[in-house]
Amino acid sequence: MAETLSRLEQTIRSRKGADPSASYVAKLFARGRPKIAQKLGEEAVEAVIAAMADDREELVKEAADLLFHLTVLLADMDVPLAEVLAELDRREGVSGIAEKAARPQK
Amino acid sequence: MAETLSRLEQTIRSRKGADPSASYVAKLFARGRPKIAQKLGEEAVEAVIAAMADDREELVKEAADLLFHLTVLLADMDVPLAEVLAELDRREGVSGIAEKAARPQK
Amino acid sequence: MAETLSRLEQTIRSRKGADPSASYVAKLFARGRPKIAQKLGEEAVEAVIAAMADDREELVKEAADLLFHLTVLLADMDVPLAEVLAELDRREGVSGIAEKAARPQK
Amino acid sequence: MAETLSRLEQTIRSRKGADPSASYVAKLFARGRPKIAQKLGEEAVEAVIAAMADDREELVKEAADLLFHLTVLLADMDVPLAEVLAELDRREGVSGIAEKAARPQK
Repeated sequence: MAETLSRLEQTIRSRKGADPSASYVAKLFARGRPKIAQKLGEEAVEAVIAAMADDREELVKEAADLLFHLTVLLADMDVPLAEVLAELDRREGVSGIAEKAARPQK
Repeated sequence: MAETLSRLEQTIRSRKGADPSASYVAKLFARGRPKIAQKLGEEAVEAVIAAMADDREELVKEAADLLFHLTVLLADMDVPLAEVLAELDRREGVSGIAEKAARPQK
Repeated sequence: MAETLSRLEQTIRSRKGADPSASYVAKLFARGRPKIAQKLGEEAVEAVIAAMADDREELVKEAADLLFHLTVLLADMDVPLAEVLAELDRREGVSGIAEKAARPQK
Repeated sequence: MAETLSRLEQTIRSRKGADPSASYVAKLFARGRPKIAQKLGEEAVEAVIAAMADDREELVKEAADLLFHLTVLLADMDVPLAEVLAELDRREGVSGIAEKAARPQK
């Protein structure tokens, strides 16, 4: 697991500033943040639909797409994935998995 | 990284069928798939907004929420996270990170 | 206003069961509810992004797309637009526009 | 139909700058555009889920919520609903309802 995400993040980060015609990720960076954010939102919608359709195989693909585009968005914002995982660790550490429920309602 | 997600997945899976009053995750499982899918969609919307607002700190929190609820949804569908990561590995292995672009247009 | 939405709804409903190659809407109906729902979700994401980018012109287009695909989804579920507007009237009638706040939290 | 949406828009616009404690809409305006955009995104997710669950009654409510929050977002951006409906008219006028398909792919 660690390896997959770390390697994915490294590959994605290496595409920043690269020739947009060379790869899908370089093209996405070139199109800018609104387009990257849009892709994240779209993949989430597709994951929601796959789950509601009870389509396990489709959910695997959409969840992969979601993780992929989340990693691109984080890279575009210069947020290391490790920081997000540290946030997950912190929550579990502080007060157990139920802590999420205690976050102030948005 | 591996540890955080594996441990999160294990903790979440251990909440399936648990007393809904005991934890946020047990309550989410009890409310059912539409509610879990809804949370995933909502967290994605919030991540999109944090990115558009260029709010790095907020994005860290929303990305953590997104990973958290994606893990709950996968657990509800009995899809191991490892299967999603294997899908990411497979794509990179087959044809490089640009492969995503080659997926049939949906 | 009334005319635009009524006419749009009528045109869209007339496309149900029509030859998918004849129009965008007929094709959408032929692809089925998950695809129609996906389009609605995607257009909402794009409206969110246009608003966050403070892009008035883009918001007009995305809001039109959103209304368009909402009308298709309602038609696919055999829900007349009038029923949705009656729900809006009902809420305002019962207790003023603040009533929305009183809906049980989801 | 015209009446419902026109009146809704008027009521909503009259809440801009009003005391946030006085109504749900005034409070929403006070919280700002990211929160309004978030609500729109969330209602779209709920409409998607209601449609996928084939829940007609729930879809009526979520579609009403979606129209409501779209009207708030348009008001926040100072876009009259009439402009969005004119865009729908324009598309149908120019080349029939299939015109949407001809929009440049985003």
